Amino acid sequence: KRRLVYSTRSALAIEKETPEENRPDTFLREADSHVTTSTVRSRFEKMIRDAQDTVCASIEAADGVGKFKEDVWSRPGGGGGISRVLQDGAVWEKAGVNVSVVYGVMPPDAYRAANPGADHKPGPVPFFAAGVSSVLHPKNPFAPTLHFNYRYFETDAPKDAPGAPRQWWFGGGTDLTPAYIFDEDVRHFHSVQKNACDKFDPSFYPRFKKWCDDYFVIKHRNERRGLGGIFFDDLNDYDQEMLLSFATECANSVVPAYLPIIERRKDTPFTEKHKAWQQLRRGRYVEFNLVYDRGTTFGLKTGGRIESILVSLPLTARWEYDHAPEEGSEEWKLLDACINPKDWV
Amino acid sequence: KRRLVYSTRSALAIEKETPEENRPDTFLREADSHVTTSTVRSRFEKMIRDAQDTVCASIEAADGVGKFKEDVWSRPGGGGGISRVLQDGAVWEKAGVNVSVVYGVMPPDAYRAANPGADHKPGPVPFFAAGVSSVLHPKNPFAPTLHFNYRYFETDAPKDAPGAPRQWWFGGGTDLTPAYIFDEDVRHFHSVQKNACDKFDPSFYPRFKKWCDDYFVIKHRNERRGLGGIFFDDLNDYDQEMLLSFATECANSVVPAYLPIIERRKDTPFTEKHKAWQQLRRGRYVEFNLVYDRGTTFGLKTGGRIESILVSLPLTARWEYDHAPEEGSEEWKLLDACINPKDWV
Repeated sequence: KRRLVYSTRSALAIEKETPEENRPDTFLREADSHVTTSTVRSRFEKMIRDAQDTVCASIEAADGVGKFKEDVWSRPGGGGGISRVLQDGAVWEKAGVNVSVVYGVMPPDAYRAANPGADHKPGPVPFFAAGVSSVLHPKNPFAPTLHFNYRYFETDAPKDAPGAPRQWWFGGGTDLTPAYIFDEDVRHFHSVQKNACDKFDPSFYPRFKKWCDDYFVIKHRNERRGLGGIFFDDLNDYDQEMLLSFATECANSVVPAYLPIIERRKDTPFTEKHKAWQQLRRGRYVEFNLVYDRGTTFGLKTGGRIESILVSLPLTARWEYDHAPEEGSEEWKLLDACINPKDWV
Repeated sequence: KRRLVYSTRSALAIEKETPEENRPDTFLREADSHVTTSTVRSRFEKMIRDAQDTVCASIEAADGVGKFKEDVWSRPGGGGGISRVLQDGAVWEKAGVNVSVVYGVMPPDAYRAANPGADHKPGPVPFFAAGVSSVLHPKNPFAPTLHFNYRYFETDAPKDAPGAPRQWWFGGGTDLTPAYIFDEDVRHFHSVQKNACDKFDPSFYPRFKKWCDDYFVIKHRNERRGLGGIFFDDLNDYDQEMLLSFATECANSVVPAYLPIIERRKDTPFTEKHKAWQQLRRGRYVEFNLVYDRGTTFGLKTGGRIESILVSLPLTARWEYDHAPEEGSEEWKLLDACINPKDWV
């Protein structure tokens, strides 16, 4: 099943977006939104838009100064998105929270390659993809960066094979990227992730924690960009309703996992040395996102909305030649934890 | 012939480097260096090491304060390199000038794919690659960044096909990336490139200028990272001696093309607004290098020396959401010239 999604992505070319004056109630096509509001498509769209509203309201309240700027866009054949960015606030240097709903068509070869058992030959397979994604970069070097993303992917039932099922997948995760380690913060963050997971399946947290540690690797440096969290992709071997509830729970856990840490660290005094180290770690963030992140590299290659995709990049970043923190220093401890992932709960 | 080099690169896994205390006279294998010093391998290595010395000496003299730090490394089976980096000087924020000499082995399939006419089946084909590469990022936003790279690639004659020729290619280029346009500077830079080209073939400058404009495109933004120069790759359809002389002439043209511009701009007064725009353009530089540059992405994927590869990144860079310079402003003029390449001579 992994290959199906990969192939689709590489074959997809997206139509250009049009800016919109107003937020529509839904980005679903009429055929999707009129039949019923109880489809997974419809409920997932509502979930990610609620998550966007909640996270943005919490960020603005905690920041006190910065306000989100909103850009709404749509595509001719249905679908669209809402990008919200807060830049140069009191607490956050750059905070982006985006939702998007995309309709596309998967080439038959990609579908067949992923379904060798299928004895019918499908035509092009239409699909639906929706997600919320966010990166929050604070100013204070002791306040961590947070990333989260929850997405749902579904193919239409093939027209030439009546009764053949739709295929669907969930993906997502929430992960924390500090420049300095406060054990208390990282343990709190991972505990919230574990609690969300444990409500659904005791195997989820260990499995998705490891998946996260394995995914966010800057391979050319053999280090992770941060201290992980949870990550999963192309998940469809559980009950669909359960996974929808699970994704919802994870999205709802973002604020309680993150905001208490920000409240504790946003006003911590710091020096230029602390700021320079944060900037070096931001450089690593840029390296991961531009070289390895599937969402970013996919978006760049298929002509997604560039400003929405690259809002994940920090406001500023730094690269020093051959920098190595002194052994035993606070900077070294962070780097060590990025190289050797730990169990935090 | 293009495909041959591409395939080789993607199939190559490089051995780890060892730091060395001293610069050796040559990185060539004994078999290469003892037979004769008149081979193209040997003369190309001497050329790039001379170019490294000359450029570094000129940069240090113009900077007045910064000194290059040198790292020498070698590989067990022969080959190695010299990385030189000047960081936080008076004029340059980061200046890297590297040479490397690499021995590798090309899988037979890659060779056959590129040589469909060959009626013999070769074993693995050993190859040799050497190059000088450099990125120079000044502090002053009115002083431009310069990049140059000259490289030579050669396969061994196949052992199982006596008399079959070696194959060889030259590649390289020199290009200028200002944050602000001074017509006088850009015209001077391109004139020096054109003069170097015209000594060899009147078709070179127009062809390699266009090749440069086509190569340094940040595709997801549909803009170039800078104002171009010359670029060529996998060149072997001219006389080998002529191309060696041409690459030498190009490398020797770096100092006269660049230093007069630096002398004019290094002390120009600037504001925070100018600095912020330079930082945004540095962000574009990072995007090009990490997402598109063949040398960088190849190096990252094959385990080259990371600090040498990423020395091309600026000390600092910036990403603002949805930034667009005011029409008619100096910033807009630069962006316009990056979108619509001009003829400068």
